[in-house]
Amino acid sequence: MRMYDILEDKAAGRALTEAQIHWFMDGLCAGTIPDYQTSALLMAIFLNGMAEDELAVWTDAMARSGDTVDLSAIAGVKVDKHSTGGIGDKTTVILGPIVAACGGRLAKMSGRGLGFSGGTIDKLESIPGLRTDLSRAEFVRLANEVGVAVTGQTADVAVADKKLYALRDVTATVNSIPLIASSIMSKKLASGSDKILLDVKVGSGAFMKTAGDGRALARAMVDIGRRSGKETVAILTNMDRPLGRCVGNLAEMQEAYRTLQGCGPADLTELCLWLAAKMLAMAGRGSFDDCRVRAERSLRDGSAAEKFLAFLAAQGGDTRVLEHPETHYAAPQERVVTAERAGYLAVASAEDIGKASVALGAGRLTKEDAIDFTAGVIFEASPGEAVSAGQPLCRLLAADGSRLAEGEALLRRALRVDAAPPAPEPLILDVVEA
Amino acid sequence: MRMYDILEDKAAGRALTEAQIHWFMDGLCAGTIPDYQTSALLMAIFLNGMAEDELAVWTDAMARSGDTVDLSAIAGVKVDKHSTGGIGDKTTVILGPIVAACGGRLAKMSGRGLGFSGGTIDKLESIPGLRTDLSRAEFVRLANEVGVAVTGQTADVAVADKKLYALRDVTATVNSIPLIASSIMSKKLASGSDKILLDVKVGSGAFMKTAGDGRALARAMVDIGRRSGKETVAILTNMDRPLGRCVGNLAEMQEAYRTLQGCGPADLTELCLWLAAKMLAMAGRGSFDDCRVRAERSLRDGSAAEKFLAFLAAQGGDTRVLEHPETHYAAPQERVVTAERAGYLAVASAEDIGKASVALGAGRLTKEDAIDFTAGVIFEASPGEAVSAGQPLCRLLAADGSRLAEGEALLRRALRVDAAPPAPEPLILDVVEA
Repeated sequence: MRMYDILEDKAAGRALTEAQIHWFMDGLCAGTIPDYQTSALLMAIFLNGMAEDELAVWTDAMARSGDTVDLSAIAGVKVDKHSTGGIGDKTTVILGPIVAACGGRLAKMSGRGLGFSGGTIDKLESIPGLRTDLSRAEFVRLANEVGVAVTGQTADVAVADKKLYALRDVTATVNSIPLIASSIMSKKLASGSDKILLDVKVGSGAFMKTAGDGRALARAMVDIGRRSGKETVAILTNMDRPLGRCVGNLAEMQEAYRTLQGCGPADLTELCLWLAAKMLAMAGRGSFDDCRVRAERSLRDGSAAEKFLAFLAAQGGDTRVLEHPETHYAAPQERVVTAERAGYLAVASAEDIGKASVALGAGRLTKEDAIDFTAGVIFEASPGEAVSAGQPLCRLLAADGSRLAEGEALLRRALRVDAAPPAPEPLILDVVEA
Repeated sequence: MRMYDILEDKAAGRALTEAQIHWFMDGLCAGTIPDYQTSALLMAIFLNGMAEDELAVWTDAMARSGDTVDLSAIAGVKVDKHSTGGIGDKTTVILGPIVAACGGRLAKMSGRGLGFSGGTIDKLESIPGLRTDLSRAEFVRLANEVGVAVTGQTADVAVADKKLYALRDVTATVNSIPLIASSIMSKKLASGSDKILLDVKVGSGAFMKTAGDGRALARAMVDIGRRSGKETVAILTNMDRPLGRCVGNLAEMQEAYRTLQGCGPADLTELCLWLAAKMLAMAGRGSFDDCRVRAERSLRDGSAAEKFLAFLAAQGGDTRVLEHPETHYAAPQERVVTAERAGYLAVASAEDIGKASVALGAGRLTKEDAIDFTAGVIFEASPGEAVSAGQPLCRLLAADGSRLAEGEALLRRALRVDAAPPAPEPLILDVVEA
């Protein structure tokens, strides 16, 4: 077999055969295929797409390219959850405790944030002492004992994805639905769960800017799951505005705690309850409606909040920081951004809110950047709310004044005050099932 | 400027700006752009094409990436000629002497054959002693004194083309009209002529298999020439059958000599007269019709054949080999291929005739292969001719029996004997001018 013929087929718009895909993935991982041929293939896939069965074989080959995780030692049906990334998305750390409080389990490998999008591992690490490098044995034990365990991704899962992503990142081929779908699903297939629940974010603060693209990505991933024999469900959710009111690692953990205590923002609470109920139902723990009722109860009766503290503590976290951050962190500098005129608060670009949080120090532009856990944006008003001139819209938190100034400039670009109230937008746009 | 943005623009189907193209070509030649980014760009161009003005800027930047040749020391208007390559195409060595016999000049840099397509330099080198590594001074002197000079391409013309071609060759992006047009025209623009005459071959023995593709390539090259201020004319000619009756280096030189003596095959004679008349007319030496009359006369009065011998001798060639090849070469083995049944000779694939000649030893599969000047195919019957069962169709020439066997197998695949005569096909399909 020759890489030339694979390139010729893909450039002509033909689907690659199973044998071609396996030959390519083997060569990619063995290092025998030059990068200049792999990058040409990625561009051809970017422009010509992939057929449904071709994509399933491609993803399965990626999933088999590294270690596969065995979660059989964790009791019950394992349901993995994945978000495609957005601004203020702290659902994993909230729904895990809800699921656990309702008798289910969340054993999840998560990633770090990059660019405007945050990552669960960074949020967790804002809790002093908390470890996200659990051994396989610890991971399994905590999942069974506590009901929630979240660890960083091991380097050796879906090795092909790392090689492909590195080249996509420098050849402008990241935003390809089959390449995104296979990147996400290869890691999900390798991570040992029985079923997969996907939250595809759509809007100005997401990688998928339109509902059409989001639906296509959701459909591609659900199809891959079905062809791999793993039930996969995807919901499309609105990311034209941040989820909740806090963007920034420690601020998001604090907001998660408040949400688990039953006093979080409505959008965040609603999404976490939906996801938790769906996970419990997929795990065979009752109907969606029943699970939903139990999930809501866990917020009212304190059991979910209690699981949250237990989960963080089990991974070594000092949860006093949630109530008293000053015991561990130097207080950040603050700047209040106020409305320049009366009207209705609107988000012009949620991505710019994410960029503002990066400028404040809460995120990273490159994988090597350090982050400031206390930095971020805390909204005092919600999008759609009527505001008067001079009313505080949000507080910016950063280590120094120059970061505050840079963050404020980006944030002002991200927000508008409109004369008319915005049309209400649903939070959950669609559910895609096999 | 960043290569990432250039890739993103091209992948989105946007035309690159002049600044982007210059930045890329500079980086390509300086070696600062990684091959994996260049190959991704080539695939994006292969799939998304280039706008007309973008292609002109791209080609001009390629032309300026290496040395540019100064032909101002050669008297008169310099018209360059280029064929896109085919089977049995020995027009350059024929039309040069015709042009020179009519008072014009052909000073041309030519290439070697690769794959099924032959090259002028290989044909010339079948004449013992003939040098194709003329110095710039020799080249100019012979063009002025003899009227014809043909030399190999210097390594430092259109440096970017060599780098791009090497990557196209391994990423299945060779067959792209803008990439082919810019590759050809960058070398033509750098080679110092005032005007350019292109012979775009179309058919089963050409790189362009359809008249539509050929016309698009011709149009792209003529447009590049116009935008660069160099009058460019392209003709589309039939390559569904070999040009003339001989394929193979020495055999083609012998056929060229016969053609210049006025007794060559009709198709070859016709095309050479047309090209010579067009070159003379473009050089300001009279109307096309007048030039055509003078070109025909040069075949009848012996002046063209005389120029041919003078041209070969001036470059060091021992022209006795044209009449008596055995004085320099060991006689090759021969095999006659005969018609299996009565009917009309037809060419199923001219490319396979080219491949047969390579198998016989007349061409090369890689640039490093040595070639056998005496090997080749000599047709005894022309396509369209009525043949009886057992009648010789062609003679194969090769150094040994195994090559003859391999060549015969390919040749039998290339030819058919049909029950009905083929529809006559015009030799010159179209003329494309600015």
